[in-house]
Amino acid sequence: MNEEFKKLAAEKAVEEIESGMVVGLGSGSTVFYAIQKLAQEIRTGNLLNIVAIASSIQTEKLANKLDIPLITFHDKQKIDVTIDGADEVDKYLNLIKGGGAAHLREKILVQASDKFIVVIDDSKLSNKLGEKWAVPVEVIKFASPVISSFIESINGEPNLRTYESGIPVLTDEGNYIIDANFGVIQNPFELAEKLENRAGIVEHGLFLRLSSKVIVAGQDGIKILEK
Amino acid sequence: MNEEFKKLAAEKAVEEIESGMVVGLGSGSTVFYAIQKLAQEIRTGNLLNIVAIASSIQTEKLANKLDIPLITFHDKQKIDVTIDGADEVDKYLNLIKGGGAAHLREKILVQASDKFIVVIDDSKLSNKLGEKWAVPVEVIKFASPVISSFIESINGEPNLRTYESGIPVLTDEGNYIIDANFGVIQNPFELAEKLENRAGIVEHGLFLRLSSKVIVAGQDGIKILEK
Repeated sequence: MNEEFKKLAAEKAVEEIESGMVVGLGSGSTVFYAIQKLAQEIRTGNLLNIVAIASSIQTEKLANKLDIPLITFHDKQKIDVTIDGADEVDKYLNLIKGGGAAHLREKILVQASDKFIVVIDDSKLSNKLGEKWAVPVEVIKFASPVISSFIESINGEPNLRTYESGIPVLTDEGNYIIDANFGVIQNPFELAEKLENRAGIVEHGLFLRLSSKVIVAGQDGIKILEK
Repeated sequence: MNEEFKKLAAEKAVEEIESGMVVGLGSGSTVFYAIQKLAQEIRTGNLLNIVAIASSIQTEKLANKLDIPLITFHDKQKIDVTIDGADEVDKYLNLIKGGGAAHLREKILVQASDKFIVVIDDSKLSNKLGEKWAVPVEVIKFASPVISSFIESINGEPNLRTYESGIPVLTDEGNYIIDANFGVIQNPFELAEKLENRAGIVEHGLFLRLSSKVIVAGQDGIKILEK
């Protein structure tokens, strides 16, 4: 993928931000271009009175380095616009997220946001969710083996995410990630409901009916998908 | 409440346990009578080859002290019977739990169980859930203020649970508890779905369609409610 187009798409997303807004900052490589652009707009005075909420420790560090003023949900409980990436996007703008293990905080931001702008490159587009990615499921450690059994019982293949050393990946909240492969997902809403009903699952990576707009970077430039 | 009848009800619940079973142990004062009775049955050889999974650190300590062999979900992913208390029980045997801040692990046990036996005294019986208790909602710290706003938006009154010192109560998983008062709950299933759909809520205290049997201790002895 042409990094120049990814950057262009991320910068396009920043056009949604207006002075005085509370901005949600997602995580991952594409979003980092947006964060850099946002910092530049603040620095040059094009955007005034911006405050932001970070979705991960990594994003928090970058925003601090670039002098973007950060707040928490103790300060504001509503976000105007959140910009974030995705691992897979279907034609209804439903998403799979969580490749970076940050989907719990990302979904908290998105559900508190008026607008959610997704930035991806076109390798992330699918006809149906599950064609390319398993569903990342954040689980509390105590429940991890029983959630694996549960995922098998609903015809998924559970894989506890580990580092190369074999040690389980820990999220910012200290939980495990199980990558649950359901193959091509015929009904993501039904699957989401099953996962949400189960205690021990802190959050799954299906983001359904949450995106306002998807900005896609491809070989020939950017295109915008809207509901 | 007559402690003698509470003890009798808890002991009645232990009759559901057979040799060779995996037993789930809930938390709280009534359940502790059941744990003591179970320990006695093991000690006297009336029940053989019992292993148990504990729902809280407090229960784990008591079980260890009484020489009940404990395992984790790494050893077994299925429980034969779980015995636990409840804070409020309606006529359909739906429950509110979480007064002891242990409802997350308790629900994990119950959802992995073939049978769930509830032991209460009759002060816990209600016509409809919410008459006596708010719904305890375990939330990750990061999201606590935004979940309070969300609870208000669905007509609940959120109260962050604190110790007398004013410091927030921490669960065994290191999360906060918001006691969400919705008044009398007309449709607990609809409410549960709303809460489950929201990222940042780790688990709510509504236990719906999960109880197999409720054993109630009253002034005149015990009575059994079944579906």
